[in-house]
Formats: sequence, structure tokens, C-alpha cells
Amino acid sequence: MSAETFVKGKTIELRKKHIGPSCKIFFSHDPIKIVKAKGQYMYDEKGRRYLDCINNVAHVGHCHPDVVKAGAQQMELLNTNSRFLHDNLVLYAQRLQATLPDKLSVCYFVNSGSEANDLALRLAWQYSGHKDVITLENAYHGHVSSLIAISPYKFIQLSDTEQIQSVHVIAAFIAESLQSCGGQVIPPPGYFQQVAQHVRQAGGVFIADEVQVGFGRVGTHFWAFQLQGEDFVPDIVTMGKPIGNGHPMSCVVTTKEVAESFMASGIEYFNTFGGNPVSCAIGMAVLDVLEKEDLQGNALRVGRYLTGLLEEQKEKHPLVGDIRCQGLFAGVELVKDRLKLTPATAEAQEVIYRLKEQCILLSADGPHRNVLKLKPPMCFTKEDADLLVGKLDHILTELEEALGLKFHNALSVENESSKRKPTDENGRQHLGGLAHGGGSSQEDPQIAKRIRS
Amino acid sequence: MSAETFVKGKTIELRKKHIGPSCKIFFSHDPIKIVKAKGQYMYDEKGRRYLDCINNVAHVGHCHPDVVKAGAQQMELLNTNSRFLHDNLVLYAQRLQATLPDKLSVCYFVNSGSEANDLALRLAWQYSGHKDVITLENAYHGHVSSLIAISPYKFIQLSDTEQIQSVHVIAAFIAESLQSCGGQVIPPPGYFQQVAQHVRQAGGVFIADEVQVGFGRVGTHFWAFQLQGEDFVPDIVTMGKPIGNGHPMSCVVTTKEVAESFMASGIEYFNTFGGNPVSCAIGMAVLDVLEKEDLQGNALRVGRYLTGLLEEQKEKHPLVGDIRCQGLFAGVELVKDRLKLTPATAEAQEVIYRLKEQCILLSADGPHRNVLKLKPPMCFTKEDADLLVGKLDHILTELEEALGLKFHNALSVENESSKRKPTDENGRQHLGGLAHGGGSSQEDPQIAKRIRS
Repeated sequence: MSAETFVKGKTIELRKKHIGPSCKIFFSHDPIKIVKAKGQYMYDEKGRRYLDCINNVAHVGHCHPDVVKAGAQQMELLNTNSRFLHDNLVLYAQRLQATLPDKLSVCYFVNSGSEANDLALRLAWQYSGHKDVITLENAYHGHVSSLIAISPYKFIQLSDTEQIQSVHVIAAFIAESLQSCGGQVIPPPGYFQQVAQHVRQAGGVFIADEVQVGFGRVGTHFWAFQLQGEDFVPDIVTMGKPIGNGHPMSCVVTTKEVAESFMASGIEYFNTFGGNPVSCAIGMAVLDVLEKEDLQGNALRVGRYLTGLLEEQKEKHPLVGDIRCQGLFAGVELVKDRLKLTPATAEAQEVIYRLKEQCILLSADGPHRNVLKLKPPMCFTKEDADLLVGKLDHILTELEEALGLKFHNALSVENESSKRKPTDENGRQHLGGLAHGGGSSQEDPQIAKRIRS
Repeated sequence: MSAETFVKGKTIELRKKHIGPSCKIFFSHDPIKIVKAKGQYMYDEKGRRYLDCINNVAHVGHCHPDVVKAGAQQMELLNTNSRFLHDNLVLYAQRLQATLPDKLSVCYFVNSGSEANDLALRLAWQYSGHKDVITLENAYHGHVSSLIAISPYKFIQLSDTEQIQSVHVIAAFIAESLQSCGGQVIPPPGYFQQVAQHVRQAGGVFIADEVQVGFGRVGTHFWAFQLQGEDFVPDIVTMGKPIGNGHPMSCVVTTKEVAESFMASGIEYFNTFGGNPVSCAIGMAVLDVLEKEDLQGNALRVGRYLTGLLEEQKEKHPLVGDIRCQGLFAGVELVKDRLKLTPATAEAQEVIYRLKEQCILLSADGPHRNVLKLKPPMCFTKEDADLLVGKLDHILTELEEALGLKFHNALSVENESSKRKPTDENGRQHLGGLAHGGGSSQEDPQIAKRIRS
């Protein structure tokens, strides 16, 4: 294909030489070379089509022509910083504001979810006059240094949550409205209201991180924090990944009070690329497509359909410990034992590799990397869901046979998993053998040889 | 014009309502609405053409057709993250590497100069095992929280540089290869070598921040750190602003040793948008245009010509205290007294506002905001330089007449300013009247009424 400059082996060689080794690649033992994409499909250098179930950045579909056109037209006309007046900037801010509670009226445009969350912390520090932050176990909020410090997913598995609760003067509570990297965890309705009450009493602010889950993905609402009820309004909302369908941009929205307090610090906030006319044109095109193609409605309908299919899988397969779905944001937790909730980490990796061989792209996440993560582009269809779940069914059946896993072992604890707390504190990796005799997958040679980093 | 949705007043009103008040605008009392740009020119909603002398982001010229085309074509084809193999990523890394010393071979692609400098700190911390950082007085390295802490320009004016020198266990020394926001300060050749020796002896690394000054701007070299001599190689180089001609992208390049040490921390580095095929295509197009149009050569030739014109201004105008030029990176320091080097802050603002009225865009920077900053797109011509300096000459003449400033006051200390240390420690604002009787400009009603925030 003309889009390929090097043969794949050469691309791998050059990548090893010139790209930081900390930058991991999918399927590192046999990575995929993608040369084009459209809608929910990606194509490799040989023209093989993959169903993309993981790319929540290509929100309205890869290379959506309306978004591409908006970006290209504005790039031709003007791309400059926000120190000049431009209608795209204020139009887009107005459009975003219309999706949010009235109180959240002030925008800061930045370039990535990490920049957004870092700025959210600066706003909170200034407003509260304090520096301490409460974060959730297994949380991930970004890659800049201030965020690594509040991202146990990256930094450290906090063993003692009491330590955090003992902090009594705080600047902020930060949480994803639905926890993504932490394992697709959905907080119970009303939880954020209670947290916000405590945080505000202590002088802090509530930061809702919508970087992974915003922009209609949850189906019933445009923002995931709205699942908590109409009465819940965060003090700061951060946005990212899907906002520009792949274009590097993001946004922080806050209240007038917080914005004015930040202003009072006397330090100007300038972001070279943030809020440039091209980014704003692209952001507006994404909102237009979401509306025009009713993609939030699609997320609701296809999400419900997919949930139904996955629930059937849970009935059928002992490996499936829990299904956590909200629109087109779905997690399938694989366990080796439904009673002990032993994470089936190696099995999750196996599923992902086998699906890849069937041209379906998926990833595993959560503290034990045993939660299959589904966050496809929002144009995902019922047929795509059928295809995915059909293949998954087949793979799970084969795996369970190889492991000697039978359903009656788990039958008695049906629904047990749904009673767990979202912090998933039982999910420690049990390295010993399992009661039902299959042995841990790490010890199973058939699976072990397929496990890749 | 069709590019305008709102009348200017409405744009201002919406901006006040929806954009964070900490985000400042140029010429806040009468901001400019720019609707299109081409080459070194920007156009307002009435079609008025401005000569852009400040936009070092639109590096190869605003909306360069080759860059726009490369971006639009790749946006149509594929825009996804670097977890898949893609030739643009490795090709671009290879191209960038070719401009650098061999040792600097490993790239991390990110979205902004701030992300780049934050990652540089993380690399340094991991490699050195320490956290302390040496930064220069008046330095500015970015807007994320870790960088505010090392940016006295933003955070605090360090009054006692001895404090810093007393730190004996350090992770890194970070400096712009030419200090930009700090007042267009050019370090003497050999200075970085000596600093690097001390820093490395203490176990630290040398970070060269090329975010503002890289990519051929200095004319004689592609990178500003190369002005220090062929023998100088930083451990980490950070890039930004001009890299994508306005597209949000940036890069950190380091040695194999530093990259491997970062890898050994076990923490993956993932950046959602960093190194995507569109950014890389745009980055390559910028390098292509630089080569094809010999813009580094143009920076050298036009830079020298501009320097000559500015030196003549220094001969002619007592307000001009110092000229610091390197290619198309030029600083004109305005002083009210060449002996005392009293910063002419209000006068610099006046010059900038008057030039704006003449459709020439310029800014003032440095700790006292008295250094006129010239960093135009690299396609800036000798005719543009003539136009700018002609207008500047006229404005300075008028200003000096109004202030009663005469040249003989300063003649005796000609060249005195060139002997100063780059830290500019004499440049304190003198609020009292001047020896030559003009009074400080803050007290001059003619000028005071024109001074805007």
C-alpha cells in the first residue's frame, strides 16, 4: 500500500532505535501496523480490516469527513493563539457550556487530558488555599508529574486507604465520573453528592475527570457525572480524549468563583496551542456530528444491546465474573473463581490476543489487568456487537475447556460480584492453585506460551 | 467577512463570559480580531493587514500550503495513537535525530512545550535519583504545575542566586538555549559547557529548552544550543512551539542512557495524542519547507540585515539600551538611562501600541517588560525589516521628544550595556525622576494615558 514507507520489520527496528522504550505498543510480540481507518474500522498494511473496540478517542468514528473538513478548512485560513479575538473560541466555549449545568460557565482550553487535570489542580489549590488532594484507589489522571503523584494506577498501589481519609485539610477530590483504567468501575448514584458535601465542608472542590468518559458515551447523559443525579454539579470538569476526535485538544470548565480566585493569584495563564481556531473548529464539528448522527442515542441503544449479549455470556461462562456497562463504556471482568474473585489476568491477555487474530481490537485494564475494556467509536453498531460477542463466546468456551473450568463451581455465588465495593479490594492476585483444580493460568503451559507483555 | 460570526463587541462579551479571565489577550483595551493569516501577515475582520513580528509558532509562515496539505491528507487517512506501528512516527523521529548530535537519539512525542519540559524533569529525576533542579533567574519553562515551580518568570523573582548555588545534590540544570521570556538573553559561548561539567559532576543532567528558539531560528545553526560550540551536547533537548507550525505537538529527545533509566522505573509512558500520524506528517512538512525554502539561511541573512538596522537605531536613540540578536530572534532593550540601565517599561508598552496602530505586531518581555521581542515567522523579508525599523525610528523619535530625552546624556556610556551579565541584575525599576530631567514615563501624562495592562 502506498501509505507504507518501510516494510514492517524496518518500522519496528526504527521504532526501537528512536522511540522511548517506555512508550509501549499494543501486542508487543506481534504489533499491528495500521495505515488507515474509517468509522469503527482500522486497516493494516495488507488491507486487513480490524473492528476497533478500544478507541474512545476516535469518538465520532475514525477520520469522520465532517471533522476532517472542518480542520482542513480552518488550517488553510488561520491557526494562531488565543491572544487574539476569534469567534471559534467563544462559539465553541458557548457550545460546550450548553451541555453543562449553568454554574460551569468558564473554559480554559488546553492540549491534553493531562494538561487539563494539572490545571484543575492549580485552580483547586488557588481556590482552596490548600495543596492536599484526595484521589481514588487505582485512579489514573494523566502523565505529567503532578498527576502521577495522584494516580495510584501509575505510581503505587495504596495499601491503606485510611491514610487518605485521615487528611482533614484538603484542596480537592478528583475522580473520573466512571473509573476507566481502574477497571471500568461505576460509582453508585448519590456517591459523588456525599463526597462533594464532605469535600466542600473541608474547603475543597470536586473535580470530575471526564477525559475518558464524556461526550455522550454513557448514552443516557452527555456527561458521566450526570448519572449521579440532576442535583450534582462538580466545581471543575476536565475533558480530553474524544473532544477533538484525535486532534490534540482538551478543556477545563469551572465556575465563575473558582476562575476569579485563580485570576486573583495574579499569574497569567497562557497556553500556546490551547483554544486555537483549528482546534475549536474541530471541536465544534465533533459536537455537530454527535447531534446530526444522534450518536449519544446510538450509544444508549447499542450499549443496551451489547449489555444484554454480555449478560448472556456471564450466565454461560464461569470466567466472566462481572459485567459493568454504561452506554458504550463496558467492562467485562474475568475471574478464575467467582467466590474468591481471583483475577484471571493471563486469561484476559489470552482473550485479547485471540481476538486480535480474529481482527477485533480490545484491551484489558484494571489493577489486575483482568477487565476487558470496550470503548469503541460511538458509531459502533449492533452487528459489530454481535460479531464481537460471538467471537468472545467461542474463545471463552475454548479457554474454559483448556482450564477445566466448569460453570457449577461458580453457580452458587451468582451475582456475588455485584455486591462488591467499587474499590475492588478483594481482587488480589492469588498465585496459589484454584479450588476447582484448573491451576493458575500462569502455570498452564498452553496459555503461558501465549502470554505476552 | 464570512469568517466572522459575531461583531467584535459580541466576541469580546462572550469571551469575558466563557473564557478564563487569567487568559490574557494582546492589547486588552482594544484587542485585535484576526480572521486569517498568510506567510508573515495576519488580517483582521475588516481586511486590515498586520505584519506579524512575534509569532514564532507560525514558523514557516502562517497557513503554509505544504503544511496544511500534509495535515489534511493525513487527517483523512488515519489519526491514532502510537500504540500501533506507523511509518510517520519513525520517519519523523529519524528526521529530527538527523538534526541533532548522534548521542541524542531517543524521542518522546508529546503535545506542548509544557508537557515536554515536564517529561524532561521526570527523565532527569529518574536518571539522577534526585529531585532538585537548577533554573535561571527570570526563566520560563511552561504552565504545568511542576514547571511553574522552576519558572521564576512566573512564580517569583529570585533575589538571591547564591541560594541556588548552595544546592549540592541536583537532578538537573534546565535553561533555554537563548532566554526568551527572560528578555532575549544570549549566553556567552562556552557557558553551557562549564555548567554541564558542574551539573554532571553532581550527578545531574543538562536540559536544553529549545521550545522557543529551535528549528533554525538562530540562523547559523539549527538548534540554539549549538551556538555554544560543536563540543556541547545536552543530555535532554525539549522542543515545542514552531515544531508543527501551530499544530499542537512537541518532542523530548534524549540519550539512550537516560531513556533506559526511565524505562527501568517500570512506569509506562503513554501520551494519547503524542506522535500521532497527523502530527508527524505536519512535523515532517515543516522540516521539508525549512529545507526547500532555505528558511534557516533566510533567518541568517535577514537577521543580519535586521541587526544592522537595529544597531543604527541604537546609535541614534538614547532609549535603545541594548540590541541582542541571533538570526530572527532579536531583542531591543529600552532604557531611560544607559548608565543606570533604568528599564523603560512604559515606553516599551507605548512603542508596542503605536506599532499596532501602524499594523505591526510586536510584544515586550523580560523581567521589566522593557525588551521589544522580535520572533517573526521565518519567511520574514528585508523589506519587512525596513518597514518595521522605519516605523520604530519614527515612534522612538517622537517619544524621545515628548520625554525630553537627548542622546548626549547617554553617549558617554556607549557600549556599557554589552558588558553586563546576562542576569541583568542592575535592571531594577527606578521610580524616581531621571538625571536628564525627563521624568519617569509613569509620571508623564501624555504617555501614562496610553499605557494599558
